Amino acid sequence: MRQIQKREMLSQNTLLLLLAIFPLSFSITLASDPDPVQDFCIPNPKFGSIRTIHGMHTILPCKNSSETNTEDFVFSGAKAAGNFSNTGLAVISASPNNFPGLNTLGMSFARADIKVGGINPPHFHPRATELVHVVKGKVYSGFVDSNNKVFSTILEEGEVMVFPRGLVHFLMNIGDKPATLFGSFNSQNPGLQKIPSTLFGSGIDEELLEKAFGLSSKQIGALRKKFDPKKTS
Amino acid sequence: MRQIQKREMLSQNTLLLLLAIFPLSFSITLASDPDPVQDFCIPNPKFGSIRTIHGMHTILPCKNSSETNTEDFVFSGAKAAGNFSNTGLAVISASPNNFPGLNTLGMSFARADIKVGGINPPHFHPRATELVHVVKGKVYSGFVDSNNKVFSTILEEGEVMVFPRGLVHFLMNIGDKPATLFGSFNSQNPGLQKIPSTLFGSGIDEELLEKAFGLSSKQIGALRKKFDPKKTS
Amino acid sequence: MRQIQKREMLSQNTLLLLLAIFPLSFSITLASDPDPVQDFCIPNPKFGSIRTIHGMHTILPCKNSSETNTEDFVFSGAKAAGNFSNTGLAVISASPNNFPGLNTLGMSFARADIKVGGINPPHFHPRATELVHVVKGKVYSGFVDSNNKVFSTILEEGEVMVFPRGLVHFLMNIGDKPATLFGSFNSQNPGLQKIPSTLFGSGIDEELLEKAFGLSSKQIGALRKKFDPKKTS
Amino acid sequence: MRQIQKREMLSQNTLLLLLAIFPLSFSITLASDPDPVQDFCIPNPKFGSIRTIHGMHTILPCKNSSETNTEDFVFSGAKAAGNFSNTGLAVISASPNNFPGLNTLGMSFARADIKVGGINPPHFHPRATELVHVVKGKVYSGFVDSNNKVFSTILEEGEVMVFPRGLVHFLMNIGDKPATLFGSFNSQNPGLQKIPSTLFGSGIDEELLEKAFGLSSKQIGALRKKFDPKKTS
Amino acid sequence: MRQIQKREMLSQNTLLLLLAIFPLSFSITLASDPDPVQDFCIPNPKFGSIRTIHGMHTILPCKNSSETNTEDFVFSGAKAAGNFSNTGLAVISASPNNFPGLNTLGMSFARADIKVGGINPPHFHPRATELVHVVKGKVYSGFVDSNNKVFSTILEEGEVMVFPRGLVHFLMNIGDKPATLFGSFNSQNPGLQKIPSTLFGSGIDEELLEKAFGLSSKQIGALRKKFDPKKTS
Amino acid sequence: MRQIQKREMLSQNTLLLLLAIFPLSFSITLASDPDPVQDFCIPNPKFGSIRTIHGMHTILPCKNSSETNTEDFVFSGAKAAGNFSNTGLAVISASPNNFPGLNTLGMSFARADIKVGGINPPHFHPRATELVHVVKGKVYSGFVDSNNKVFSTILEEGEVMVFPRGLVHFLMNIGDKPATLFGSFNSQNPGLQKIPSTLFGSGIDEELLEKAFGLSSKQIGALRKKFDPKKTS
Repeated sequence: MRQIQKREMLSQNTLLLLLAIFPLSFSITLASDPDPVQDFCIPNPKFGSIRTIHGMHTILPCKNSSETNTEDFVFSGAKAAGNFSNTGLAVISASPNNFPGLNTLGMSFARADIKVGGINPPHFHPRATELVHVVKGKVYSGFVDSNNKVFSTILEEGEVMVFPRGLVHFLMNIGDKPATLFGSFNSQNPGLQKIPSTLFGSGIDEELLEKAFGLSSKQIGALRKKFDPKKTS
Repeated sequence: MRQIQKREMLSQNTLLLLLAIFPLSFSITLASDPDPVQDFCIPNPKFGSIRTIHGMHTILPCKNSSETNTEDFVFSGAKAAGNFSNTGLAVISASPNNFPGLNTLGMSFARADIKVGGINPPHFHPRATELVHVVKGKVYSGFVDSNNKVFSTILEEGEVMVFPRGLVHFLMNIGDKPATLFGSFNSQNPGLQKIPSTLFGSGIDEELLEKAFGLSSKQIGALRKKFDPKKTS
Repeated sequence: MRQIQKREMLSQNTLLLLLAIFPLSFSITLASDPDPVQDFCIPNPKFGSIRTIHGMHTILPCKNSSETNTEDFVFSGAKAAGNFSNTGLAVISASPNNFPGLNTLGMSFARADIKVGGINPPHFHPRATELVHVVKGKVYSGFVDSNNKVFSTILEEGEVMVFPRGLVHFLMNIGDKPATLFGSFNSQNPGLQKIPSTLFGSGIDEELLEKAFGLSSKQIGALRKKFDPKKTS
Repeated sequence: MRQIQKREMLSQNTLLLLLAIFPLSFSITLASDPDPVQDFCIPNPKFGSIRTIHGMHTILPCKNSSETNTEDFVFSGAKAAGNFSNTGLAVISASPNNFPGLNTLGMSFARADIKVGGINPPHFHPRATELVHVVKGKVYSGFVDSNNKVFSTILEEGEVMVFPRGLVHFLMNIGDKPATLFGSFNSQNPGLQKIPSTLFGSGIDEELLEKAFGLSSKQIGALRKKFDPKKTS
Repeated sequence: MRQIQKREMLSQNTLLLLLAIFPLSFSITLASDPDPVQDFCIPNPKFGSIRTIHGMHTILPCKNSSETNTEDFVFSGAKAAGNFSNTGLAVISASPNNFPGLNTLGMSFARADIKVGGINPPHFHPRATELVHVVKGKVYSGFVDSNNKVFSTILEEGEVMVFPRGLVHFLMNIGDKPATLFGSFNSQNPGLQKIPSTLFGSGIDEELLEKAFGLSSKQIGALRKKFDPKKTS
Repeated sequence: MRQIQKREMLSQNTLLLLLAIFPLSFSITLASDPDPVQDFCIPNPKFGSIRTIHGMHTILPCKNSSETNTEDFVFSGAKAAGNFSNTGLAVISASPNNFPGLNTLGMSFARADIKVGGINPPHFHPRATELVHVVKGKVYSGFVDSNNKVFSTILEEGEVMVFPRGLVHFLMNIGDKPATLFGSFNSQNPGLQKIPSTLFGSGIDEELLEKAFGLSSKQIGALRKKFDPKKTS
């Protein structure tokens, strides 16, 4: 223990030297959303870089408190709507990748804007409960439980709905103006499976899909054409 | 604290008396799969009864160690296949409801038998990772991750596959004899959402489904007829 | 196990009878914010009532899925500001007591409105990280870490700040119109200690407070007069 | 939700009435040592009594903050040594049963006194790490890891040793005066398996024990006579 | 945050270069079996190598989803029995070391084969509950609880028994053919302490063992000769 | 998987070589106090050094069992009192930084000595419950709950008090000799916020503090002078 602390004195500088020569880039993927063991942990770019790997969140050794700035704890990227998809949905997600202060603290959030008549298709988050707050607009909103019972309603401005962890849920703007919602999650990486593309855009065996939905090969083929990026020409 | 222990002497008998007159039935739904704080907890029928509420697991005050029997810790109901569904699947699930020893210990399991050509349709368990062990047969097996990448393969007798928590997975018997599999879960109540009936058998708004899958009202109607129990005549 | 299920048939009705005669009221305080072991758990009023005990959240046996309604998962009480305190702050808190769907799902939230020049005094939540979203207005906002470093900034409409679990934080409306904020928490009961009243309104020994702050008996007496409800005449 | 709160008004008194007539005694065994969701939870004797069931800790609905006293959070029973066993060991354990304030807070402790030459035989706690602090005396102390490596040393007054969760550990007073130790645990119910009596005092099949230790039937019989209470005459 | 992402562009290649020159080998030991924060985490050999350190499981930065293969999620090494010990036991353990897909998902498993009359001696897993499924044969099986009560029975083909976390358990093949069992665990590294070698093969002080078991120095010496590898000549 | 193990053979030496040239110093901040997944984890100085970053605990890859020594699990630094502050308090804290064996095991402790009339000012630990054991002396001790109710009492030698996680607590030596206390925590890094310096020594906006306490600018200025290190001349 004592020798550990002595060693540190010299290695601190040597490391900086080393990094100057060989900018080390590695990323450790945190294994959980458990209780933090420090006040916070802002990933330290000195020790590498955060990579956005297909939605996976990676962490790095933390910055010292003295190297950490207030801006690490503030997210300003959700003041306006993001880019709209062809279903009329625009999502901006804040995670430790673009909002470092969230790292290890067990929360994240997203802003969703939905055009009139637009939808957020049936999807679920494998690792989080979601609280959705309607800042503007009027939406049909619901989720399905393990008994295949749907809990759906029309949410108005200022209302809040909870989608229990891991259950399929969905939204549709049924008002006459764009809707804006803020969803908060109790995980720094809730995960996401959008049912249509999970099923038809991933390459699951066609025969299995035919049997699962009772559809013909042609019908499944049409669905796959819609959602499979590799089938899109 | 001291008076608590005195009071107990008399209330023990009074309770039995009370229960003889008014067989109290209540159920507490345990809120988590966390670390146990006792060796085990066999629900005590003296204090009420376990109810099977649409797949929800409920717990009760525990039996004393001296009232607990070895049979509480043994499950004999999975020696043979269960009843087959119309997709050629038979599942026997062991949970604290029918295997009391599992209560509070954070595990459960299921036996699945699949007929030749039969499937276990795309589904997921919101609260558990699954380890599936092929005891007999040959199955196409896979899951989809958050990047819509499918990880699928053919499993043979004696092989084991892991389905990460909350991700959509599926099985199809592609061998020439019935297949038998044992799945174990790291939750006493993994939960289950079968995609086809979650989407089309729950009553989600038709317009939203049309937009989500790009299908016509007639096509969605046909799917709902297949999976919605209320639409089945 | 088998006899448990038989017993249930009759005890269900007997219980209703019993409850008709002796409306049993008890409350179980849930011990944690861990992973849920069921889809959700709406407290069942048939088995007693939820009591608001000085901010403590209590749970009850859950309703069946079939007895649960969509409105259990929706909160409409935060459409407008609550009642303002003398520091110009109005808070509406949503917890399982008034938003049953939150129960066991590990989240809660609050709406805070702050008058021009008003403050939310230094306080902390012992059991949750907070994500605060500025829906309207301009606020000075910050927290202090374990090294006594303050992280403070001015938040504008649409910005989001994170207050790490258990750290002292504070807000002041420095704009020229009322501010509206939504805070979400990763606990169904975050807890709250407002520093001024925790120290001076609780009855901590005066000598200890004098020594802790280096203030005179008279100065401490004045502070206690402000915050101790028993000293208020 | 609203009707729940109305109902409460009357049921509060009715409950007290009911309990006056039928002092209800039930006990809920808490399932975990997770994060608390309230400040604390002092079991409420109004709703029944705590039963000491062979070392199992049971909880009850909590008292209100206003009904809770400081003495619930203080333990005075460890000022002097307990009763000594025939191995020269005296243990006083503090758990929620005799120190209600510990309930739901994830900690407990024990005072151990060991006579000169006395031992605390090899044992382990299935659910907790232990920090042992030598208040008085000199002890041989150690534990064994999963590689069958022993970590043992001589501890003197004022020293502290950690026994990792679930690993076999042991103590022997090798000084010339009685030793006093305080062990704290990170579980409200760490559990205990004393190896000699677990193996030879529980009734494990004799043939299996012979094979496991390579001992004769006569030797195993002698060990069982020492540790099996039923074999003791 | 922004500069982090810029820096990444160049460091990615530099890292590969660096690793080509200095194949960095380090290993991070994961600290828990908590909820995953990503779909899965296949250790990335580019960033070092997994070392099998006396049964300790180590993790590494994860592979990208696109670099991950189905075979990472399948284990084929348990199709046949392993090598038998002198007690007639053959165990094949699957952990993240040889089944990378298990990493961070909170589960592992083992295949055990027991010869006629063979045993799995009393042992326990400090960090997991075990579900044991008898695929073939007939075994005496049991565990001991904290009250020294043994729960033992004869398991037949197709039966399943649960051994609660951290409690001593054991098996003996009492049938007339070899037995095959599959045990699954709710930890990626359950740990293992085999009582005979933990006590007599680790080097615990002889005097303490004599006092603990009431055996003579000669008897303890004989036991140590059997189990202590250093005493074996 | 197989190639991973081959690669290791060579990289082990290369790493040592690399480290001889470039003593790599990095530190990973552990994200939680969850269940360990190995017996223990002694940080390995070969892979870098532990840095004490403003009270933040950092971990490193673990040593092999064979490289680990008993002394890693023993702390001898709390035999005598530490250095006294101007409030008459001396604290020695044991954490993974100076007591490596604690790493990943979810516990830590501190020795506090208080002079006659000295105090431990109101403070709280964001991440742990504390059990305080009075080894010597007589202290006024208490905590405040979320309802601003103070639970305070006089503790004598041998008594133990529990301070629930995250709640403000305090101590004052009211006896006629120095007091010695041992506090144990159920986190390896409980964190600490001392109220006086958190509020007045961190740089919170003066206007906000005036409004929060109802004090004049001059009064707040005087308090800041006492606690703000930057204002101290």
